[in-house]
Amino acid sequence: MIAEEKTISSELVFKGKIVEVRVEKAKLFDREVMRELVLHNGGVCVAAFTDDDEIILVKQFRYAFKEALLELPAGKLEAAEDHYSAGLRELAEEVGAVPDEYEYLGVLYPSVAYLTEKIHIYYAKSLHFGETHFDEDEYIEMVKIPFEKAVEMVLANEIKDAKTAAGILMIAAKRSKK
Amino acid sequence: MIAEEKTISSELVFKGKIVEVRVEKAKLFDREVMRELVLHNGGVCVAAFTDDDEIILVKQFRYAFKEALLELPAGKLEAAEDHYSAGLRELAEEVGAVPDEYEYLGVLYPSVAYLTEKIHIYYAKSLHFGETHFDEDEYIEMVKIPFEKAVEMVLANEIKDAKTAAGILMIAAKRSKK
Repeated sequence: MIAEEKTISSELVFKGKIVEVRVEKAKLFDREVMRELVLHNGGVCVAAFTDDDEIILVKQFRYAFKEALLELPAGKLEAAEDHYSAGLRELAEEVGAVPDEYEYLGVLYPSVAYLTEKIHIYYAKSLHFGETHFDEDEYIEMVKIPFEKAVEMVLANEIKDAKTAAGILMIAAKRSKK
Repeated sequence: MIAEEKTISSELVFKGKIVEVRVEKAKLFDREVMRELVLHNGGVCVAAFTDDDEIILVKQFRYAFKEALLELPAGKLEAAEDHYSAGLRELAEEVGAVPDEYEYLGVLYPSVAYLTEKIHIYYAKSLHFGETHFDEDEYIEMVKIPFEKAVEMVLANEIKDAKTAAGILMIAAKRSKK
């Protein structure tokens, strides 16, 4: 049986620049349960391809893991920002590219038990390259990887970022259907 | 250029049952930057298959999205808990199954910009079914889906949970290599 839970009360316990944390009381049948929620505006990432079928990844140090990770170019949404144009903006800023073809692949929920983040994934190709414009504090290295090799890297667990692994494998699965 | 950041100070701003939030000061070259971190013990999920090549998913209401989601059976790790045995435990509790074959597929990082969670993914088959033992507050419905249909559901974005989408597509990619 699927049990719906209705919010009774919500207490803001932390408000940061990236996340907000709430402790909520919810009604589950005739009982009250406590739920911890991390609220995040969500993000967008773009799987962009060169004309030689290389996928463009960015490598950057991630403080949460104290390691440099390979990722799809991505960014956080501002409140109520539209993810379609945010994806184009991130691709322009981090890769310096504007695509002729740009297609929505779908949305993923990174950690459903407590985190409200949704990450939208786009596919881009026929790129025109210009200049990059990084945010302050962003030190990013662009890497172009032949797509088949990128799939191998996901399967060898050399690409660990969930949005990047899922995005690459979505495209691989779509291609293998054709 | 990949810029490492070294922690200078760390302030605990929220300690809950599921997450802990810290605001840290880090050194980036000669500057100081603030980093918001959500700390989580990590989790494990299991892609388990029946002898008829159906993948076993669980459907449950997720409070963070106020919707019921299809997911791989999964659970949170206790501090320092070993994910191999935690995966077997979750499979026993949520599905009531013990596998003869059990294989590690890898680890994914759900949201690398601020969240320390790592989710480990296992593959299981040759299942022996017994009784389920849900945690209190868990209302879960088990669903068996032919694997090819599950891949279609990911591509149609009917499966939105990131660990589940990535796990299904990893197995699809491994199979298509053979």
